[in-house]
Order: sequence, then C-alpha cells, then structure tokens
Amino acid sequence: MTNVSIIGIGCTAVNEHWDTSIRHLAWYAIEAALDDADISKVDALYVGNMLAGQLSAQNHLGALVADFAGLRGIEAVTVEAADASGGAALRQAVLAVQSGLVETALVVGVEKMTDQTGSPITAALATGLDADYEAMQGLTAAGAGALLMRRYMHEYGVSVPDFAGFSVNAHANGADNPLAMFRNRLKAEAFAKASPIATPVSLFDAAPAGDGAAAVIVVNSEKAMDMSPQPIRILGSVLATDTLALHDRKNPLWLGAAERSTQKAMVMAGVTPDDIDLFELHDAFTVLAALSLEAAGFAAPGEGWQLARDGQIGRNGRIPISTFGGLKARGNPGGATGMYQIVEVARQLRGQAEACQVPDAKIGMAQNLGGTGATAVTHILGI
Amino acid sequence: MTNVSIIGIGCTAVNEHWDTSIRHLAWYAIEAALDDADISKVDALYVGNMLAGQLSAQNHLGALVADFAGLRGIEAVTVEAADASGGAALRQAVLAVQSGLVETALVVGVEKMTDQTGSPITAALATGLDADYEAMQGLTAAGAGALLMRRYMHEYGVSVPDFAGFSVNAHANGADNPLAMFRNRLKAEAFAKASPIATPVSLFDAAPAGDGAAAVIVVNSEKAMDMSPQPIRILGSVLATDTLALHDRKNPLWLGAAERSTQKAMVMAGVTPDDIDLFELHDAFTVLAALSLEAAGFAAPGEGWQLARDGQIGRNGRIPISTFGGLKARGNPGGATGMYQIVEVARQLRGQAEACQVPDAKIGMAQNLGGTGATAVTHILGI
Repeated sequence: MTNVSIIGIGCTAVNEHWDTSIRHLAWYAIEAALDDADISKVDALYVGNMLAGQLSAQNHLGALVADFAGLRGIEAVTVEAADASGGAALRQAVLAVQSGLVETALVVGVEKMTDQTGSPITAALATGLDADYEAMQGLTAAGAGALLMRRYMHEYGVSVPDFAGFSVNAHANGADNPLAMFRNRLKAEAFAKASPIATPVSLFDAAPAGDGAAAVIVVNSEKAMDMSPQPIRILGSVLATDTLALHDRKNPLWLGAAERSTQKAMVMAGVTPDDIDLFELHDAFTVLAALSLEAAGFAAPGEGWQLARDGQIGRNGRIPISTFGGLKARGNPGGATGMYQIVEVARQLRGQAEACQVPDAKIGMAQNLGGTGATAVTHILGI
Repeated sequence: MTNVSIIGIGCTAVNEHWDTSIRHLAWYAIEAALDDADISKVDALYVGNMLAGQLSAQNHLGALVADFAGLRGIEAVTVEAADASGGAALRQAVLAVQSGLVETALVVGVEKMTDQTGSPITAALATGLDADYEAMQGLTAAGAGALLMRRYMHEYGVSVPDFAGFSVNAHANGADNPLAMFRNRLKAEAFAKASPIATPVSLFDAAPAGDGAAAVIVVNSEKAMDMSPQPIRILGSVLATDTLALHDRKNPLWLGAAERSTQKAMVMAGVTPDDIDLFELHDAFTVLAALSLEAAGFAAPGEGWQLARDGQIGRNGRIPISTFGGLKARGNPGGATGMYQIVEVARQLRGQAEACQVPDAKIGMAQNLGGTGATAVTHILGI
C-alpha cells in the first residue's frame, strides 16, 4: 500500500473542443480538482500528455499549465509514456508525495486533438509505436489494433461479432455519463455492420480521439484524513513496460506489462482479482479490452471476450468495466485518458457516479496502456 | 539533503552523430553508466528528452530505451521540460529513490538532432517557448536569446564584446575535453567579429545543437556507500518554474525560477554560494550565463558579465563555470544537456576531470534551464 491518497478530482467533458486551447482544457480540469479539494495551492504539478509537441507545437507544458492555472512558480514537469502518459503522471506524483519531498501534488492529463495545425493525428498517434520498425513501415495505431484482433480471432477461433459485447457495454454506460463523447446506445447488430477502419477493426471497435483534461490532487494519507471527508487511498501503483514493437514479443496476444503491473499492484494493495469491484481498462480497441481482462487475471487466455458475451462486464456483472463509457464511448483523449480512468474510479468509490454507479464499490482498479501495451500503469484505489 | 547518491555515470561525445539513432545514443550512455557502477540491472528508468516526438517521430522513449538497453520490462517514462528535460528527469529519479518505492534508478538524457526527417530543428526548439504568444508570432529560441541580450545591454550599459569572456572560457575548457563538440580555442577578437545569428546574438554567443546522451545511476545513500568507492551525494534537488513567455515577467532580466530553485537547493544542501566549487550553468547564450550567475547569487544584477571579464569563471577563478566546455563548446543536445551537467560535476568531484579538473572540488552545482528560464532545475552535489 502506498501512503498517498486522492483528495480532489475534476475533469472536462471529452469532445471535439474546437474553441478551447490545450492550456484552457488543463486549467478547467485543475480548477475543478482544486475546488473539489477546497484548496488553492499545490507544491508540484505533473502533466500527462503525449501529443502537444506535435499537434500544438507546444512542449514545456509543465511550466505553461502551472502558470496559466494560477500556480506560477511551482515545480512542474510533463510525463510522457504515449497514451499511458496520464497514468504515468499519477505514478510520478505518488512517488513524489511518498518521498516526503513534495507535500501536495496535482496531476493533470490533457490532450488536444481538434483544430490542430501540426502533424496529422494518425501520424502523431503512431509515435507511440516503434518509429523505425513499425510506423516508418506504415503501421498506424489502428493498424496495430487490427493485427492484434486478427491474430486473436485466428488463435482463439472467434469472429468479429464476438467482440460486440465490449462496445455495447461501453456505449450503454456512456449514455448515462453526461461527460461522455458518445452517448448513443449501440446494438450488437449495428456493431456487426459497422464501417471498417483497418479490417477487422471497425468504427465500433476503435475508441474515438477527443480533447479533454482530467485532474486529481494527492497528499499523504494522514493529511488526507484531515483535509477530505472522502479521501481515496492509492493502494497500489505500478508501471511496467514491454517492447514497443509487436513483433519483438514472444506472444503478441499476451500483454506482459499489463500482467506484471497488475500482479505487483495487487500484491502492493493486498488484494486479489476477486476483491476488485470495477476495472477501468484501456479499451482503445475491443481486442485490447479482451487482452486486458486476460492479462489481469479475470479470464483465461482467449476467454476475455466471453465475459462480454455473458454480460459479466456490466454494472452488476462479475467485473464491471468502462463504467463511464470507457475509451470507446467516453472518448480517448490520448495522454489524458489515464487520468479520466482515475477520476472515474474515484467517483465510483465515493458513490458519486450517479447513473453510472457500480453498487457498493469499495476497491477499483485503473489500467492505462501505452502503444500496444508497451507501457502499462496500474493503480488500485480503495476507501 | 536528500538521501540519494550517484553510483554510476556515463555519456557519449556531443557531436553530429549522423549514423547513430536516438535509441543507440541512449544505450551507449546507459551502458557506460552501468559499467561504471558495475551493475547490470536497475528498477526504473527516467528518460529526459525534448524533441524525439518532433524530430524522430518517436514518443514513448521510456519503454523503447529500456528494452533496447537490455532492461526490458522495468518501470520507464519520459520526463519533459523543454531543454531542462535532463535535469527534470534526475529530479524524478531523486523523488523515486527517496520514496523507497524504487531502489535503483537510471536517468538518461538523450537528444538526436542530426539526420532528422520531421519538423525543422528551429521550429522544434521553439516548442519550448510559448507556442501561442511567442513562437506563433515568429519568435525562435535564438530570437528570445537576442531579446534578452539586447535588453541586458540596454539596461546595464554593456556592449557585445563584454560577453566575450563566457565563450572564451567555454572554448578554453572544451579544448581540453575529448567529448566536446568544439575543441577550438576562441579569442575575444574572433568573438567580436562573429557572424550574426539573431543580432546581437552571434555564432559565438549561441551554443550549438548536437546529438548526445548522458546517464547516471542513483540509489539511496546508505546503499551507495556499499556499492561504490566514490559515491556522489545529491545534497540539493529543486525544480522551479516561471512564465514561458518573456513578456509575462515583471523583469525579463531576472531569472526568477533560477533564483528560487538555487536558494531552495542551497537551503536543502546547507550551503551558501561561497561553498560552491564549480557551477555548471545553462550557457545556451552568453547572456544566459550572465543572468544565471546573477540569479544564483554569484553576482549582483547587471554584473554577471564582470566575472567573465575578470577571469573569475576559469578553473582557478572564484566560481568556475562550463568546466568541460559548457553548452557553448561541449555542445547543447537539448533534453540531454542537463544530464551532461550532472555527469560533469560528478567527474569533477571524483577528481576524474583530467585536463578539465577544478582543483580540490568538493561541492558542485548544476543548473539546467528550459526555454528562457521558465523551468530551472538545480542540483547540488557533494562528496
């Protein structure tokens, strides 16, 4: 268990925010988190971001966001691990507070993909893959998802409609989340007929890119008891890595970093998969949802999709996932996604999830992946 | 004082490494640091990098470099704070080890600017400025340096030749450093006749962009005593920020972040300016060397240049700076620069600086700036 707790949370809606700059997005989430914690100062800021350099011609977000959010002068850096940047930024804040050298840490995940003048988004997102051995050969993020899905279908004898349950569940939950990018419900029949993006990945397998920011404030757990009526404890916090290139892995269908980060986080937290009341996983593609459930020990290899088929991933199922819509329906704002997962788990544990509430949630897990699982950041939160 | 010490150091030469990719550069420095520490495993990797996304179409360097360096699977992230990324990455490693959650941490600063296919280097470097209010209006890093230098000359009544001492000193030291990008000595007369880059900044005011990587390994100080014959203690470690945009500062000639990070680091280390035997400062432009000396308390405002004029910044002077050539002659590999500073201070304190040795060096300070001082990371090292 760490000695760190969350005392404030906040986020913007995920959407195409055409009229909002990256610094404004970050500020809105930070303002909400500061208000929620009822504080106005912090000692350090960790910004999780992947693409501002390419898409906004803006690096150096740490100092920029600190200043724009009214926190001029504080310690502030950007943490990057592709689309796992959000989770990775929280991990740095946990280390900082645990060290005793930083008292109050603010973490914001932020990404701005709409109304950009830099690289095309597809090329920018491919910088999370291996540039020399994958992206330069033409592989894109969706292409990598397609390779994984095709291989999964081949190895385990399943077909495209078998993945439908993940997107149906995500959209059902997203429909209940006012901050979700897509609030339409989805039927399995529509899933089966969706337009292809990179076959077999279709429009309804792939999570949409969006703009957004999500923030939390962490302090040590003793202090949190004094400062917050409902502190959320960070029971486990582990970041692990794997090869960037899929072809370098012995078994491309096994998310080794996700497995190791989950196992270590569970040991740290003193829990088993049975103790987890909800799991915000990284469903950038339906196949990644299946593989994440398998790597985390909720299903045997090749059987993750059956949890979706059998209705076990819904709010009242064995392991609720994507409870606010997940990447698929809430939207996937790149380096901000990991922080949305944390905010959402915290809302569940506080009992503030409203229509998305998982009954009696006490322990929640969030897992943020970078690339095709080359980085996996697992946080286990509890009350 | 922190409870963290350096047990291994390593770096490549700074140069135009046309035939070396960014992952190779990082690996060479890491291999040297692991050899120096006589270990083969670490628990976490912090990569300081600013421009790989733009110039190498490669984000996600944490997992990539860990894998390529034979450390597949470990915790690994990128830390970015413009050209202060190197120092900022060390700061994260210090927090990680101090927390007790990470035992052995590796830090590598790496930047690759030669043989790139992405954005032009000038545009990429400008992402460390305020994109909306500075870079989009046409300001470049050299342009910002020129604004500062012009203002300094105006406010303090000095002229271009008064800055010569900084470059003459840097080149004199670089001439003695086999890893420096430029090993030619420079005369004040040549400085005065140099070609303009962004008037009044000339070719001999501005540090050259280069490729390179520098790495250190840190553990807690008790463990370091067992593992290393010459551990270097990290006495102070502080990161502070300021506005990105120069026009947002009350006094553009005062490096507020540098002042605050220096003062806090000195308190943490229990030292005063008089105790510092050498100071690796961020001489990306001669005017930044002058301003850094002033902000750190080695000279009164407007008088930093006099230390150079009076020969007080040489190896036997009052405060030796740029002892291996500094950014000006050793070269300025962006996000790697801060880690070169650390490796160089460590070599001085170990007495391994060879021809660049500052006599009897016991305490050294390194200060890495991002943008025009919007981020300042100060580390004070001691034996």
